[in-house]
Amino acid sequence: MRSLLLIAAGLSIATAAAAQHTDYPIQGVSFTKVKLTDSFWLPRLKINTDVTIPASFARCESTNRVKNFEMAAAKSGKFATVFPFDDTDIYKTVEGASYSLSLYPDKKLEAYVDELIAKVGAAQEPDGYLYTARTIDPAHPHAWSGKERWEKERELSHELYNSGHLYEAAVAHYEATGKKTLLNIALKNADLVCSVFGPGKRSVAPGHEIVEMGLVKLYRVTGQPKYLTTAKFFLDARGQYPGYDPKSPDAWKNGSYWQDDKPVVAQKEAEGHAVRAEYLYSAMADVAALTGDKPLLAAIDTIWNNMVTKKMYVTGGTGSVPGGERFGANYELPNTTAYNETCASVADVYWNQRMFQLHGDAKYVDVMEKVLYNGLISGVGLDGKTFFYSNAMQIKNSMGFPQTEPARAGWFECSCCPTNLARLMPALPGYVYAQNGRRLYVNLFVSGTADLTINKQKVQLTQQNNYPWDGGLKFTVNPAKTADFDLLVRLPGWAQGEAMPSNLYTFAMPNKQAVTINVNGKPMPYKVQNGYAVLSRKWHKNDVVDLTLPMDVRQVLANPNVKDDLGKVALQRGPLMFCAEWKDNDGKTSNLLVPASTKFTADYKPQVLNGIVELTATVPAVEVDAAGTSIRTVAKSMTAIPYYAWANRGKGEMTVWFPQRALEVDIVTQPTAEVTVGK
Amino acid sequence: MRSLLLIAAGLSIATAAAAQHTDYPIQGVSFTKVKLTDSFWLPRLKINTDVTIPASFARCESTNRVKNFEMAAAKSGKFATVFPFDDTDIYKTVEGASYSLSLYPDKKLEAYVDELIAKVGAAQEPDGYLYTARTIDPAHPHAWSGKERWEKERELSHELYNSGHLYEAAVAHYEATGKKTLLNIALKNADLVCSVFGPGKRSVAPGHEIVEMGLVKLYRVTGQPKYLTTAKFFLDARGQYPGYDPKSPDAWKNGSYWQDDKPVVAQKEAEGHAVRAEYLYSAMADVAALTGDKPLLAAIDTIWNNMVTKKMYVTGGTGSVPGGERFGANYELPNTTAYNETCASVADVYWNQRMFQLHGDAKYVDVMEKVLYNGLISGVGLDGKTFFYSNAMQIKNSMGFPQTEPARAGWFECSCCPTNLARLMPALPGYVYAQNGRRLYVNLFVSGTADLTINKQKVQLTQQNNYPWDGGLKFTVNPAKTADFDLLVRLPGWAQGEAMPSNLYTFAMPNKQAVTINVNGKPMPYKVQNGYAVLSRKWHKNDVVDLTLPMDVRQVLANPNVKDDLGKVALQRGPLMFCAEWKDNDGKTSNLLVPASTKFTADYKPQVLNGIVELTATVPAVEVDAAGTSIRTVAKSMTAIPYYAWANRGKGEMTVWFPQRALEVDIVTQPTAEVTVGK
Repeated sequence: MRSLLLIAAGLSIATAAAAQHTDYPIQGVSFTKVKLTDSFWLPRLKINTDVTIPASFARCESTNRVKNFEMAAAKSGKFATVFPFDDTDIYKTVEGASYSLSLYPDKKLEAYVDELIAKVGAAQEPDGYLYTARTIDPAHPHAWSGKERWEKERELSHELYNSGHLYEAAVAHYEATGKKTLLNIALKNADLVCSVFGPGKRSVAPGHEIVEMGLVKLYRVTGQPKYLTTAKFFLDARGQYPGYDPKSPDAWKNGSYWQDDKPVVAQKEAEGHAVRAEYLYSAMADVAALTGDKPLLAAIDTIWNNMVTKKMYVTGGTGSVPGGERFGANYELPNTTAYNETCASVADVYWNQRMFQLHGDAKYVDVMEKVLYNGLISGVGLDGKTFFYSNAMQIKNSMGFPQTEPARAGWFECSCCPTNLARLMPALPGYVYAQNGRRLYVNLFVSGTADLTINKQKVQLTQQNNYPWDGGLKFTVNPAKTADFDLLVRLPGWAQGEAMPSNLYTFAMPNKQAVTINVNGKPMPYKVQNGYAVLSRKWHKNDVVDLTLPMDVRQVLANPNVKDDLGKVALQRGPLMFCAEWKDNDGKTSNLLVPASTKFTADYKPQVLNGIVELTATVPAVEVDAAGTSIRTVAKSMTAIPYYAWANRGKGEMTVWFPQRALEVDIVTQPTAEVTVGK
Repeated sequence: MRSLLLIAAGLSIATAAAAQHTDYPIQGVSFTKVKLTDSFWLPRLKINTDVTIPASFARCESTNRVKNFEMAAAKSGKFATVFPFDDTDIYKTVEGASYSLSLYPDKKLEAYVDELIAKVGAAQEPDGYLYTARTIDPAHPHAWSGKERWEKERELSHELYNSGHLYEAAVAHYEATGKKTLLNIALKNADLVCSVFGPGKRSVAPGHEIVEMGLVKLYRVTGQPKYLTTAKFFLDARGQYPGYDPKSPDAWKNGSYWQDDKPVVAQKEAEGHAVRAEYLYSAMADVAALTGDKPLLAAIDTIWNNMVTKKMYVTGGTGSVPGGERFGANYELPNTTAYNETCASVADVYWNQRMFQLHGDAKYVDVMEKVLYNGLISGVGLDGKTFFYSNAMQIKNSMGFPQTEPARAGWFECSCCPTNLARLMPALPGYVYAQNGRRLYVNLFVSGTADLTINKQKVQLTQQNNYPWDGGLKFTVNPAKTADFDLLVRLPGWAQGEAMPSNLYTFAMPNKQAVTINVNGKPMPYKVQNGYAVLSRKWHKNDVVDLTLPMDVRQVLANPNVKDDLGKVALQRGPLMFCAEWKDNDGKTSNLLVPASTKFTADYKPQVLNGIVELTATVPAVEVDAAGTSIRTVAKSMTAIPYYAWANRGKGEMTVWFPQRALEVDIVTQPTAEVTVGK
């Protein structure tokens, strides 16, 4: 779909090249083709456009990130922020703004972005090098940057990380606006990178992956093989550095922190810093798709299985360990210290979309949906301008509040997450549909209209639903004329009794039932392929497909190897995980038990948290009297809200996993600080 | 007192030398002068003699420790145990047996000890080197031993550690039996050590201290300055090794694990491996006493204050951290993971006795008494042949029993603790009294008779009491003829409202009251000096001194910086700390609250655990029903027993610190393993 846009924009760059090679068998339907009317997502995209992106730009200005570029252009001054990768916040916000401009044209914003791009261009050195932490004062680069270019790229400098985000932003800007300004800057930089790194030239495993994904995007846009070759070169560079201590348990010392302990094709577990890891796995998928490299494909299949069966929270969050923002051991998924960086959820969406494009299996979209509706959007407040860097799974009064981060922050010293959300959110329409020839995949249930071309015919597909609150889904197929193609509607695993595409989580109350699909009011037989209901027919104007997903409240159990969840239950309805928050439960949630027999009622509350379904039930709750010497359980009405909506009403207790029954109790005498939350 | 014994034994070794120099102003009254009748300690010494020492020797035989010496003598075979320091178990048991023989002559035991000593002598190399791990097969020494002698002494070999325990045993054997057999072996080894190490010769900070204390003992016995000089040389060698990484937080890498990160005079905190540390501090006290070295003295005063105000459990245990068996940070005194090695308590008795001898302050004896009656004897079962290596402060069902060590073991692979107890226990009579000219100190309240010489006059002092169960103390002074001297009776801090000589623990219910002392039934005015009631008078035959220490049950609070004890209370009566054990409390103790208002009753139970005082009270206890969904507090009769007596009736819950009131509860769904107990 991208090539169409490019041709439409009258660009001279060769875009057909990629299409001639091996590539993903399935391509996403471009976000530019999908207009949302969805009452769940549209307001989020709107607030991202109206609040998050302007707030991010304002912060980039007020925190001197923009000034760094101005000083680099002038080659004078002193690098004015904390990290050498602070340049990327501008790239990422430009990326988000570009997607946004394509959805909501805005002359003022466009002019501002043009102005920023001009500043970026002015900061670029004549040979293409772009890295303000050195260019401002090359004799005194940032302490992390090394005396010479690229010298500390493995560990600290983030020179290639900056490049990668530049490429991502440049391609988005180009696709969304048709302008080549940022793309030309990116290509000039990429040409330098390709001239410096490669066989017989300099080699390094980039310390924070993303340049690989970015180079692939440049390859897709330009068709220039060197960008793909260099991306693959960077993948192959991993596991080659002799300076690590393979016996060290320290992830920094043995190289696993940045996935550099083994060649990528020998990696079997999701390991190290989660954002780095998932950017790497995304790039591995890209390169595997474009080169047909089987060992690479086998490696990401193995790693994906490891992550989804052993290292993912029930909210879709990944990277459980605060120290190193990294994956823990198998089944190491603690609740009170859960890290779950928002950026890792962003990366996880990228990766699962690619896995789906490779394999066409709904299980990848199941995971992506779980991330999108839970662990990702929990990272941004309903106000669009307050954020979580890490996404907790439990807040208890006994954890000691000063050490925790239950209320969201406006921005962070290291502000990767807000800007990553800013770029992902407006790209969401691009994840709703996908296509492989005559097969049209409906992946996400998001109301709106898509303008498609199937078998060279125009087809409009409209979704109308009240998802995720209601299970009723309605699709109106509107071909220009009668069209013969397959409509593949994802049947979510959760709708068929699977809490996850793995044995990591299961439903205690499965409610496994067949989903009936009607076409024009009459049941239509269908076969299920890779998790999709395949509806093959000649489609006529205004054909209506409808089905109803079961919206029962389900109790989720974790694999018994997850010791932190043993004997506990989580609550799910549709794709949403629920949590109990202090605000709805008389100030406490750590005292609630949810016995297996608990019956929940689900009610839509339009006034609460911008409109949510609330779950309520009567459960045993532990009460301690004022003297602290009388303790008892009382029957109490508990209320649970969608996990994504927590921490919008101040600080307090929050629980995702509820004990089903107490074996005993620990008497808590004072709050203790047991949580370290990263910045 | 020692010199008298030596002269009596007709020995030629110069013993007067030490007395001509600076030394401890106060000297302990030798254990050979004190005959116990005490109903608390005498059975313990008896079982140590009858059971512990024979069991230790039997284990030394059955585990091939003796065989190692035989093979070393034959210079053939293969080192047959696990650690190169396994030789010391024989030395330590010989030390204990020697003390024991002096109390309870036993021809058979004496002959066996002689036989063992002959085997030790045969294993010694011609130049004095004695270390079976190398001598058995010098071409293939133990992996920890280094290719050459002394090569790995800093980290692993324990060559000087073995020497130190040899010297300790040799001096005890010599003092107790008058025989020079083991002493000559020790001196030959020490002469080698002094010839190898010293200024201009080899230098090392011995990896596990004790050779320093041992050399001082050889100096006292022989008067040979080189032993003292070499002991001081080893102290001065600390903090000199350039191979550490001072910035590493790892106690092994920065040298603090073996107190080698700083010169001893610059050390300010009790740090690193607790047994190593307290042997070092004991040697520092010895050398400070013998040389008048002020900086050394200042250093141990500072370290002692640090330990007693910030790093000691309420039972007197030290070394809270299992990893490295070491001191934690200030106030790092967790209960469920408390390490508290029994050997550290042994070392603490040695150190506090020396601090008392330096300063004459009762606070050191207060700490020693706390250790002796609580954290030390908890290390050996009432059967005298089962042991704790580490001494827990809390056992909860939720900790998961397979991972804990609530029941005692018969012996350990590394069996330092049983043999350390075997040598300390029979030496106990030597800690009861001390003397400085005309001042006679009564430090411990242990029934028995001491034969003293004060101002060249014979004085017999008899104690009759039922301590620690009753507070009534009776002393009968029986001079050969009227004698003018000062009797200094220790007034324990706990009897005067001080839970510890520090702000680490305080009494919630102080019960501060003056202690009345009668002489011959009439109150005698006294002044208090350094914690002692000073009774100065002309003593006549059969003068009777009596006083009563208050035996109220007291609630102890920890310094609020000890976060693990916040809001909790421990129970003390006299010198004894109490705990609740599962056996007396319907299987659970973690559910008991002890509100501040709780009134305890104390009753002596002659049939329970060889006779103990039990504390009982009615308290709130948390109960969970079988379904796990109903929780409530009920009034319950709780029973507490002396801490030292726990874990003699099987495995189960045990609590020292009781919550006073619950702020909230944590619902426990399954036992989790959170404890690592060292071997």
